[in-house]
Amino acid sequence: MTRPQKLLTPGPTSVPPAVLAALAEPVLHHRSPDFAEVFALAQERLREVFRTEREVLVFTASGTGAFESALVNLLSPGERLLAVSHGEFGERWQKMAVALGCDVVPLRYDWGATPAPDDLRAALTDTGARTVLLVHSETSTGVVSDLEPLLSVCDEARALSIVDAVSSLGAVPLETDAWGADVVVTGSQKALMTPPGLSFAAVSELAWEKTGRATLPRFYWDWERQRRAQASGSTAFTPATSTVVALVEALGIVLADGLEAAFARHRALGRACRAGVKATGLELYSPDSDDAAVLTGALTPKGVDAVALRLALRDRHGITIAGGHGDLVPRLFRIGHIGYVTSDDIAEALTAIETELERVGVEVEVGRAAPIALEAYGDAIAA
Amino acid sequence: MTRPQKLLTPGPTSVPPAVLAALAEPVLHHRSPDFAEVFALAQERLREVFRTEREVLVFTASGTGAFESALVNLLSPGERLLAVSHGEFGERWQKMAVALGCDVVPLRYDWGATPAPDDLRAALTDTGARTVLLVHSETSTGVVSDLEPLLSVCDEARALSIVDAVSSLGAVPLETDAWGADVVVTGSQKALMTPPGLSFAAVSELAWEKTGRATLPRFYWDWERQRRAQASGSTAFTPATSTVVALVEALGIVLADGLEAAFARHRALGRACRAGVKATGLELYSPDSDDAAVLTGALTPKGVDAVALRLALRDRHGITIAGGHGDLVPRLFRIGHIGYVTSDDIAEALTAIETELERVGVEVEVGRAAPIALEAYGDAIAA
Repeated sequence: MTRPQKLLTPGPTSVPPAVLAALAEPVLHHRSPDFAEVFALAQERLREVFRTEREVLVFTASGTGAFESALVNLLSPGERLLAVSHGEFGERWQKMAVALGCDVVPLRYDWGATPAPDDLRAALTDTGARTVLLVHSETSTGVVSDLEPLLSVCDEARALSIVDAVSSLGAVPLETDAWGADVVVTGSQKALMTPPGLSFAAVSELAWEKTGRATLPRFYWDWERQRRAQASGSTAFTPATSTVVALVEALGIVLADGLEAAFARHRALGRACRAGVKATGLELYSPDSDDAAVLTGALTPKGVDAVALRLALRDRHGITIAGGHGDLVPRLFRIGHIGYVTSDDIAEALTAIETELERVGVEVEVGRAAPIALEAYGDAIAA
Repeated sequence: MTRPQKLLTPGPTSVPPAVLAALAEPVLHHRSPDFAEVFALAQERLREVFRTEREVLVFTASGTGAFESALVNLLSPGERLLAVSHGEFGERWQKMAVALGCDVVPLRYDWGATPAPDDLRAALTDTGARTVLLVHSETSTGVVSDLEPLLSVCDEARALSIVDAVSSLGAVPLETDAWGADVVVTGSQKALMTPPGLSFAAVSELAWEKTGRATLPRFYWDWERQRRAQASGSTAFTPATSTVVALVEALGIVLADGLEAAFARHRALGRACRAGVKATGLELYSPDSDDAAVLTGALTPKGVDAVALRLALRDRHGITIAGGHGDLVPRLFRIGHIGYVTSDDIAEALTAIETELERVGVEVEVGRAAPIALEAYGDAIAA
C-alpha cells in the first residue's frame, strides 16, 4: 500500500472528504441545465470569497493560466508594465510578461522582502507604467504583502493592478472591491480546498474597458468570449465540470463558518507553526508576523539537508511539506497551513521534524514543539 | 433528488465508477515521488493510445487549449496556414488561428462534407502553406475524415500537420507515428473515459524542430518548458493531479481489452445507433458509414423541435444527448457513443426517443428500434 500523504504544502493541499466525494459524482455535461445550476452556485460562492460583486471568470487551467489571461487581455505588444517581485512567483510573472512581448520594468526586491508603497509610487512616476503586477502571498518565501496601500498607490497613479492571490485568497484578508484591485487571480488548490485544475480571475470595470484596446493575441484566454459563455451558464470551452462540483462543496464548507473565521484560523495556524518551529530551535525564514499566515518557512541547521529531511517526513511519517526554490533548496523547507489543515496536523508535523532532526544527530528535544504549537493556536483562537 | 444523467454526448462522457473512485483518492502533490510514478504510468498509457513513441505533452486545459498550444509553438505572426474545415470545430480552429495572428487560408467545405486528399494537395500547391490544420472527427457533424491519405499529402508537400483528434482518439483508428501525423491533440473527456480538465499533444521531431523558429508569444503553452518539466516527472505548472490519477485508471481499462477491441466496439455501437435511428424512421444527418463511429446525428421530423426533444429525454428519461450547432439547432440531435457506452445504453436512448416522438404526435412504433440496434451490435461484434 502506498502510504497516504498529509499535504502540508502551500498547494495543492489536502481537501475534505466531502469535497472528494463531490468530485466523484457522475460527470455532468457542461451544456446542461444541471451544470448551469452548479455553475451559478459556484459564481455566487466565488463572489463571496473574492469579496466582490463582479462576475468571476473561471478557467480550466492552473493559476499561471489565469494570470496569463490577465496579461493577454489587458496589454498590447511592447506595452510598458511594472512588475513587482520579491520571490519566485513575482519573477515568474516578469518572465511571462517578457515572453508575451511586453516592455517589462521590474521593481525587484530580494527574496523575502516586503514591497513598500513608496517604492511603488516612485517606480510608477519614473516609468510611466499604467499596469502593475503584484504578488499578494509570495509562496516561495511566505511573505504576504500589505496589499491595500499598494493598491491605493496604483489607484492614485491610475494604474491597473493585477494581483496574484493564488495562495492567499480565502486564507488572509483580501477585499477585491473595497481595496480596488482591478484583477485578482487565484487557483482552486490552495485555501479554497479543491483539487487543482481550475483558476479564477475577478475583473473590474476599468479592466474590462482596457480589454477593448489590448491587442496581445488571445483565444483560449479571451475574457470577452468567456464572459459571454458564462452569461449562459457555462464556460467558452469544456470546463473541468467535476472540479466545479467539488469547488461548490468546498466553498460551502469555507463559507459555512464564514470568511472571517477562516482568516482567524489561518492566523492562528501561522502562530502555532512559528511558535513550534522556534521551540525546535530552527531559524525562521518566513516573516515572524501574523501576516505570514499562508506558510512557515524554516532553515535546517547547517549541514542538515532539507531535501533529505522532506523525504524522511514523507517516507516515514506520511507528511509532505514543500522545499525551497533556487539557492535555498539545500536548507529551506516550507510548511503550508492553508485550507483543510488543523493545529493537530501542524503539531504532528513538528514532532516528525524533531524526530528526523534527532535521527541525523541534531540536538533537539523531541516532543517539545507540539504542545507549544497547540497552545499558541488555542490562545490565538481565544483572543 | 436530481435525476442522474446518462451522458450519450460526444464529450464530456459518463466515466466508469472505478475512474470516479480514482478521482476521489486523496490529492497528490505534483512535485512528489508519488505523483512522478503516476505521471510515468500516464505517459506510458498515453503513448499506447496515441500509438506513438513520442513524449505526450499534458496540459491542464480543455482540448481547445492543447490545440492553441500547437499553433503558438509552431507558427510565427503572419505565417501562412492552411486550415481545413467541414464543421464547427474546423471553423473554430480557423478563428483561433486568425485571433493569434496567422495568415489563415481556409479550405472550407460545407458542414457534413468529408475533405478530399486531392483538394488538399491543390490547396497546398496554390497557397504554399507549410502548416495544415486537420479535423479527424468533426464532432458537430459526425464525419470522421480518412486521415491517412490526407497526412500523406502533407508529407509529400513537406507540410506540418496539426490534427484535432479530440473526439476520435481511442474510438477510431489513429496511428500517430505510422501515419506521420506531426501533432495530434486530444482531450481526457471523450473516448478516454476521464472527466474533463486535461488535454494532450503528441509532437513529432519535425514539429519540435519548427518550435525553435516559431515566434508567436507563449508561456503557459510553451512546449519546451513543458518537455523539461515532464522529464523530471511533472508538468511546468500545477496539473490537475486528481484527473491524472483518474486518467491512469481509465486508460488501464481501455488497454486491458486493447485498442483494437475499442475500435471494434465503437464501430459496432455506430452500426447499432444508425440501424436504430433508421428503424425509427428518422433521417440520418451523420454519414451512414462505419467510419462514423463517434456519434450519430439525426434530424427530427419537420415540426418537431429537437431542443424540446432533448429536454424531454433529459427530464423524463435521465438521458443527455447533444444538439446541433448554428442553423441546425432546431432539428439536429446527436447521440454520442464514445467511451463508457454500451449497446444497451443506445437501445434505451432509442426507446426514449420513440416515446417522446410519439408524445408529440409523430407516428412511430415505440420499441421497434431497440431490438434492431441490439441485433446490429451483436452482428457487428461477431463479424
